[in-house]
Amino acid sequence: MIKVAINGYGTIGKRVADAVNCQKDMEVVGVTKTKPDFEAKLAVKKGYKLYAAIPERLKVFEDAGIKVEGTIEDLIEKADVVIDCSPNKVGAENKAKYYEKAGIKAIFQGGEKKDVAEVSFNALSNYDMAKGKKFVRVVSCNTTGLTRLLYLIKENFGIKKVRATMIRRVVDPKEDKKGLVNGIMPNPVKLPSHHGPDVQTVLDVNITTTAFKVPTTLMHVHSINIELESDAKNEDVIAVLENEPRIMLVSEEEGFTSTTKVIEYARECRMRYDIFENVVWRDSISIVDGELYVTQAIHQEAIVVPENVDAIRAMFELAERDESMKITNESLGIC
Amino acid sequence: MIKVAINGYGTIGKRVADAVNCQKDMEVVGVTKTKPDFEAKLAVKKGYKLYAAIPERLKVFEDAGIKVEGTIEDLIEKADVVIDCSPNKVGAENKAKYYEKAGIKAIFQGGEKKDVAEVSFNALSNYDMAKGKKFVRVVSCNTTGLTRLLYLIKENFGIKKVRATMIRRVVDPKEDKKGLVNGIMPNPVKLPSHHGPDVQTVLDVNITTTAFKVPTTLMHVHSINIELESDAKNEDVIAVLENEPRIMLVSEEEGFTSTTKVIEYARECRMRYDIFENVVWRDSISIVDGELYVTQAIHQEAIVVPENVDAIRAMFELAERDESMKITNESLGIC
Amino acid sequence: MIKVAINGYGTIGKRVADAVNCQKDMEVVGVTKTKPDFEAKLAVKKGYKLYAAIPERLKVFEDAGIKVEGTIEDLIEKADVVIDCSPNKVGAENKAKYYEKAGIKAIFQGGEKKDVAEVSFNALSNYDMAKGKKFVRVVSCNTTGLTRLLYLIKENFGIKKVRATMIRRVVDPKEDKKGLVNGIMPNPVKLPSHHGPDVQTVLDVNITTTAFKVPTTLMHVHSINIELESDAKNEDVIAVLENEPRIMLVSEEEGFTSTTKVIEYARECRMRYDIFENVVWRDSISIVDGELYVTQAIHQEAIVVPENVDAIRAMFELAERDESMKITNESLGIC
Amino acid sequence: MIKVAINGYGTIGKRVADAVNCQKDMEVVGVTKTKPDFEAKLAVKKGYKLYAAIPERLKVFEDAGIKVEGTIEDLIEKADVVIDCSPNKVGAENKAKYYEKAGIKAIFQGGEKKDVAEVSFNALSNYDMAKGKKFVRVVSCNTTGLTRLLYLIKENFGIKKVRATMIRRVVDPKEDKKGLVNGIMPNPVKLPSHHGPDVQTVLDVNITTTAFKVPTTLMHVHSINIELESDAKNEDVIAVLENEPRIMLVSEEEGFTSTTKVIEYARECRMRYDIFENVVWRDSISIVDGELYVTQAIHQEAIVVPENVDAIRAMFELAERDESMKITNESLGIC
Repeated sequence: MIKVAINGYGTIGKRVADAVNCQKDMEVVGVTKTKPDFEAKLAVKKGYKLYAAIPERLKVFEDAGIKVEGTIEDLIEKADVVIDCSPNKVGAENKAKYYEKAGIKAIFQGGEKKDVAEVSFNALSNYDMAKGKKFVRVVSCNTTGLTRLLYLIKENFGIKKVRATMIRRVVDPKEDKKGLVNGIMPNPVKLPSHHGPDVQTVLDVNITTTAFKVPTTLMHVHSINIELESDAKNEDVIAVLENEPRIMLVSEEEGFTSTTKVIEYARECRMRYDIFENVVWRDSISIVDGELYVTQAIHQEAIVVPENVDAIRAMFELAERDESMKITNESLGIC
Repeated sequence: MIKVAINGYGTIGKRVADAVNCQKDMEVVGVTKTKPDFEAKLAVKKGYKLYAAIPERLKVFEDAGIKVEGTIEDLIEKADVVIDCSPNKVGAENKAKYYEKAGIKAIFQGGEKKDVAEVSFNALSNYDMAKGKKFVRVVSCNTTGLTRLLYLIKENFGIKKVRATMIRRVVDPKEDKKGLVNGIMPNPVKLPSHHGPDVQTVLDVNITTTAFKVPTTLMHVHSINIELESDAKNEDVIAVLENEPRIMLVSEEEGFTSTTKVIEYARECRMRYDIFENVVWRDSISIVDGELYVTQAIHQEAIVVPENVDAIRAMFELAERDESMKITNESLGIC
Repeated sequence: MIKVAINGYGTIGKRVADAVNCQKDMEVVGVTKTKPDFEAKLAVKKGYKLYAAIPERLKVFEDAGIKVEGTIEDLIEKADVVIDCSPNKVGAENKAKYYEKAGIKAIFQGGEKKDVAEVSFNALSNYDMAKGKKFVRVVSCNTTGLTRLLYLIKENFGIKKVRATMIRRVVDPKEDKKGLVNGIMPNPVKLPSHHGPDVQTVLDVNITTTAFKVPTTLMHVHSINIELESDAKNEDVIAVLENEPRIMLVSEEEGFTSTTKVIEYARECRMRYDIFENVVWRDSISIVDGELYVTQAIHQEAIVVPENVDAIRAMFELAERDESMKITNESLGIC
Repeated sequence: MIKVAINGYGTIGKRVADAVNCQKDMEVVGVTKTKPDFEAKLAVKKGYKLYAAIPERLKVFEDAGIKVEGTIEDLIEKADVVIDCSPNKVGAENKAKYYEKAGIKAIFQGGEKKDVAEVSFNALSNYDMAKGKKFVRVVSCNTTGLTRLLYLIKENFGIKKVRATMIRRVVDPKEDKKGLVNGIMPNPVKLPSHHGPDVQTVLDVNITTTAFKVPTTLMHVHSINIELESDAKNEDVIAVLENEPRIMLVSEEEGFTSTTKVIEYARECRMRYDIFENVVWRDSISIVDGELYVTQAIHQEAIVVPENVDAIRAMFELAERDESMKITNESLGIC
């Protein structure tokens, strides 16, 4: 039973906590928060042991009447691995400050630079490379979404080249201070974007990407062009994607006309309307002159959750890739 | 066991179906849809018997491979009461076309005019008036939110006059064709708005309202001014509201800085992030010169769900007000 | 002096009217409106003679106290050419109903199908093909924006293939009933989009496009990938674009971080913040493996205005391409 | 000829500069910027002498190839008065750092606290109080909008009490980093809001306010309730408002259904679509039980511009209130 600490019970952290908690071979021994807000209270209500992410703030929790078990340092002592879900760049600081000192294994998220870890990770694409590693980085939501799809296409049809445009939700739904209210932001302006190289940390593929922020909170959308190595028909591509549980196919005919409908569907199926799968529009799949066009939506809050669970299994060599993915999928209702 | 038909398994209908289904004294015998989209498929997947809301469209469902048990007319034969959750104005058409002919009791939603029913309904405010009635109309989301709050204030402190400004979400989250993208719309421009008179269909109170649409999908927000008849302090008002399960108090200090955070909280607690309660900001409660100022957020998709359940009990005289509300609350996790 | 009638004094019509009116070789003899709203009043205030676009509605204008000179049929009698700026599809109806009958030349907008006219038009790309024609269609905002850029790249470097993703503003700024409030809509879902074939009505180029609607009103943004025939460096591309007045180069360094800043700039320079130019991010221009990546923003309300003016000159053979474009540019402040 | 320096050529500063520059009794001797972006370039292009707002950054402008005449300190030496248009709170710093030291008169904006100046200012309401003063603060956009309207109502009908709800645009159109993307934010949560007391710095009236931020950039909207001292009819109120040039009356019938249409109208009339007037919906004006309900929209970028010009005249005693307002109005096209 692997003991897992979640450092940062926020958007990613709370989802990973719940996912870890429904596995049979691992358990959450505690979660951290920086402040005693409603998320902290919910963590306690759900039965997670709460620790202060910033030791100096212990008193703030006490003053707010929220029971805290100790600090991040106390939590680390009880755990076999930390999943760092703190904001971008803070993970690297935590590594230096706490994890290396304590000699504990750690998983980082995609907001950290790749050199924070020994290996960047995507379950489908390079599970084996994380085996036995001490520091692993699960790539970001956009990179995870791209990699899953490209891995499948590459394995089945070969890829000469990928060109992808990411249309990104500007902030998560809970955010109320940052944003872009009415406009489109090339982000970055200077091309190509970092997503291409980031995919290459987990998959060997020729890819160039561009990215834009738009005023929505629900999901990212990817417009992808893939030059295939072998001949393929639309049906062949659909068959491959249908066969992978972490891909969900939807169609306009069923009413999926935009990300608003995808989320409406997810609200009926999972708490927090979490979508762990790439949502690919079946009708978008189209091969023109040997190039595959495909549109997918990625739920930025949830997509990396199964990969975090699989990363733990890989690091502790608890299971092989297919077995781990199968267990994770079943536990999370991915089918 | 009251047999309930849901005519219109959409935003309201699907929520009411689930709520009815977790009561011990009633059951859903079938739901209708106008088209075979993903919501229709989800209804079937959840175990609801599906009927065609428009008899002529039976074939459309068959063509889409979705099993349908019959038409709305077939469904009515199996039910004791229909909850009409069709779009505005269609309810009145359905009444003339189906319900009166079949001699079945029916509940309408607030998008219908008040004369569609014998009585307009709010559980707290006028439960007894719906007893034994054939046609009852549950008032709209904004009116339900206002009435709950005003009923409590009136009962406890007396009300001379109410002035309320509704800041309304322009469309529901799933909508992707209508909206207001960047602007504020006085709606109506001509004052006062219809919400005041609509509250008066269920509560005897002097109220004048204004209303505006703004580009958000999550919740309505009400800025309310109440001239009290008796002296009261902030704490007195808070105590009254804390005592009513269908009111939820939140505060900025806990992190509830906007409707985005309220929804984030709800995503952790209920499927579809449904909030059946009025969400009142505790820190907004402020008495100035004998006038109470208070801000509340109303989840337009869910707020009327408990009232629909209570309306059934009232119409069939299954329980008294407090008993019905208690059962409904417990079944829906309202506490 | 060519006498020009503007049928439909709306978003495009009012801009084209003003543009025609500042040319020395043409004049506006009248504009039409369907209803007596503030835009109708502004037309009169600006000195345009107003006509009823729908003959039956003459009385509605009179009732509103707005002076109307007659109907569209009266207006046509006074004109040499009609610029049809009515909503999508209405242009084709007007052609059958009025223009053919009166034997008058007409220019249509890109919302009409290509077969409404003898030729589709873009000034840079195929000016000569409109010479002497009776019915000409100025291609849509997105197509105009793509064509200008691709024409220049093709002429200078040759094009093997183009892949473009359009991120489209969902509605114009004045719209307050339609929209997409919080989401991203693949539009169309089925790929590729019609923009590619539409470009091919005015430019011979191998192009495949995808398109998405996002909740903003200001500008479209295009993410474009162009496989070049000849070697080129970033500077070569920049030099070509800098040389064309209908392209405006901007950079992040100057503060142009998104379309919001582009519009802020335009508000300082032109009435209605009209941007007649393609706005190309200089820093986006990037050649990777012989493929050019470039990002441009297109002001959907204004981009086709100069092309409408040039189309008149071509149809009446008033000037050659370069001369016409030069006159149009100078009159509109395009430099 | 009063020599005016504009410290901060941003949203407010650039508008005030242009307004000052079209007066006969004053001129702009220079404007400052903190960085060499496109707004700085536009200032130079328009003929304004540019100075560095932060002396240490002189070199940054040079490096960007933008000619700067010196620093804010150099500019102050050439001026009779500074209009401080820097961001909130920076005005107070500038006062201590530069204006007091140089002994120069200064006008501050409403983002500063009231004690930054000897008097807070609204032209209609308290022009005379600014006569001969050294430091004057023009109240904020929302306060200016409220004060103009309330002054007129008070003078003509007497006011017992005002309750106002402000629905505020969350950021200005050019902003692309901050915002609220999909939600409604009570701001402040704790009631009442500061706007009431702020109105009282310029007008003696009993007022309580609430305020909310919503995801739009165009205009604020105010829902106002005024208990009148004397009897009045809708027509009486309309007559008073029609008589004041700084109030513009619009109606739904003319097509003004939301702020989007108001801005569309303004785009036809003024550069930057500046609306210096309160935009009051004529059809909203409604007296219920002796209480006046009225809805107005306020263009946050432009509304304080005429007041800044009048404030200069008051401080230098160049004209009496009505004369100053008349000159300002005529120069800016307010009628």
